Amino acid sequence: MNKKTAAVIGTGVIGNGWIVRLLAHGYEVKAFDPAEGAEAKTKEAISKAWPSVQEMGLADNASPAAVTFYPTIEETVSGSVLIQENVPERTELKQKVLKDISRYADPDTIIGSSTSGIKPSVLQKGAVNPGRIIVAHPFNPVYLLPLVELVGGEHTDSPVIHRARTLYEDIGMKSMIIEKEIEGHVADRLMEALWREALHIVNDGIATTEEVDKAITYGAGLRWAQMGPFLTFHLAGGDQGMRHMLEQFGPALKLPWTKLEAPELTDELKEKVIAGCEQHAGDESIAELERKRNEFLVKLLDLVEDYWPEKKEVRA
Amino acid sequence: MNKKTAAVIGTGVIGNGWIVRLLAHGYEVKAFDPAEGAEAKTKEAISKAWPSVQEMGLADNASPAAVTFYPTIEETVSGSVLIQENVPERTELKQKVLKDISRYADPDTIIGSSTSGIKPSVLQKGAVNPGRIIVAHPFNPVYLLPLVELVGGEHTDSPVIHRARTLYEDIGMKSMIIEKEIEGHVADRLMEALWREALHIVNDGIATTEEVDKAITYGAGLRWAQMGPFLTFHLAGGDQGMRHMLEQFGPALKLPWTKLEAPELTDELKEKVIAGCEQHAGDESIAELERKRNEFLVKLLDLVEDYWPEKKEVRA
Repeated sequence: MNKKTAAVIGTGVIGNGWIVRLLAHGYEVKAFDPAEGAEAKTKEAISKAWPSVQEMGLADNASPAAVTFYPTIEETVSGSVLIQENVPERTELKQKVLKDISRYADPDTIIGSSTSGIKPSVLQKGAVNPGRIIVAHPFNPVYLLPLVELVGGEHTDSPVIHRARTLYEDIGMKSMIIEKEIEGHVADRLMEALWREALHIVNDGIATTEEVDKAITYGAGLRWAQMGPFLTFHLAGGDQGMRHMLEQFGPALKLPWTKLEAPELTDELKEKVIAGCEQHAGDESIAELERKRNEFLVKLLDLVEDYWPEKKEVRA
Repeated sequence: MNKKTAAVIGTGVIGNGWIVRLLAHGYEVKAFDPAEGAEAKTKEAISKAWPSVQEMGLADNASPAAVTFYPTIEETVSGSVLIQENVPERTELKQKVLKDISRYADPDTIIGSSTSGIKPSVLQKGAVNPGRIIVAHPFNPVYLLPLVELVGGEHTDSPVIHRARTLYEDIGMKSMIIEKEIEGHVADRLMEALWREALHIVNDGIATTEEVDKAITYGAGLRWAQMGPFLTFHLAGGDQGMRHMLEQFGPALKLPWTKLEAPELTDELKEKVIAGCEQHAGDESIAELERKRNEFLVKLLDLVEDYWPEKKEVRA
């Protein structure tokens, strides 16, 4: 058997996303989830996502069937070059599961946690060889979106992070290394800042959820698929780039252009936000919206990868 | 002559962007800018941008030469169906120019201000027939990005906003109507919230500007070109949509996942941000980055328009 083996612990939406990504890159996947019907749900998730990864391009030896569930963590993690943990976002639960994983994993095997909020040093507590437990936070849909945030904890040294980077880039990801651990990491903090402001705007009756979505989709969103906020502002500064931008618009940071605290999530605000989304989605089901999103993302990724800043030459 | 005529007052980057968009849609454009060399700069901007709008598809009667500069506001605005003001972002200056425009324009002609921050009621002060002065805030590059924020002031009634919507949609824009005027409108408030958080992250040494850009470009940015933050979360909530999302993640609003105030823009932070961008851009000039951005946006727009939420059927 020529395949590399990875283990996925916890097979909700994120865990299944990892499974699809690993399978598409030719991995053999060992999975564990104590929930009833977990294996059937995973099979369903794989067949739903497979056309998308197929269109992205599969590894030669990729097979959607190369996943096996095991009844214990011990059996699941043995022989894996990468172990990905995706259990619910509760600190004690994650600590317990990671401790178990670390006990049975080969001593150097990288253990990535998909946590969206918890610091790696907290997750490392009580584990065997804790330095190889890192945060490897992906984005939904995991099998399409390339971003993974890599964060080491107090026991992690830089060779571990670099080994991890190689492993995740081997499965087609773009790794973003976060220098200092912080709750919520980076990408979600950025999204959360925008999201809080969006909630204020809706709460204050300035615009509807649909109008707020338009404000992103038809404007900054089109740019952000290809260039982040810093480089975008760098361009907006003209020949002088960011320097001119900061000199001209730096003072705007003092203007009251955002609401600074999160609004109280009242029942009224909740209902407003929910109704806005449901109306916006119209008669399209979540599944239909998801299908369309995936189809789009496949095409967008094919288009955009030649235009990311690090790519110096655009193919003809 | 079958062409519609529009007037553009102030021909900096934004004014020239409007000129290119209007020309591409077959308009005759009358322009005014008292700065020395303004006309030559506009011609240069048009020839630089023309290949992009050509690839997007031109109106039958479009001509890059259909722009004429006039020496006074009075001569510029007469006979125009739309007047777009783009003078520097200083309240008194804008008020003075808009007052002049309103004096010479036909009484019902819509006057759109490109202001990114000032409320329309403030701009309307002292003008003739002030209700037709509205905010029509575009996004750079104006000839490619479709978003325009439309905001009426205290003198504006809803027929004016709807006439404005028709005018801007006639030149290929997606209009977002903002119900209540507010400093900074909506899209920039959202971007500003994200931008403040990004500055904090860089300031605190959590990640570099390049890593922050990656956190957007390879993740949320790919989604936001097609679907805004609300609909994105609606999907993330599974079958229950936004309702589940708010129940599960609403409490996260109480977590310290963003820094709430803008950081002090110290010289050190400035230099860090500038250096990060310059390093990220590498040896590519702003012009080269712009060319690549435009080429990408043309292709992205062609791809994405079939996938925006309002489009129910995807073409084969």
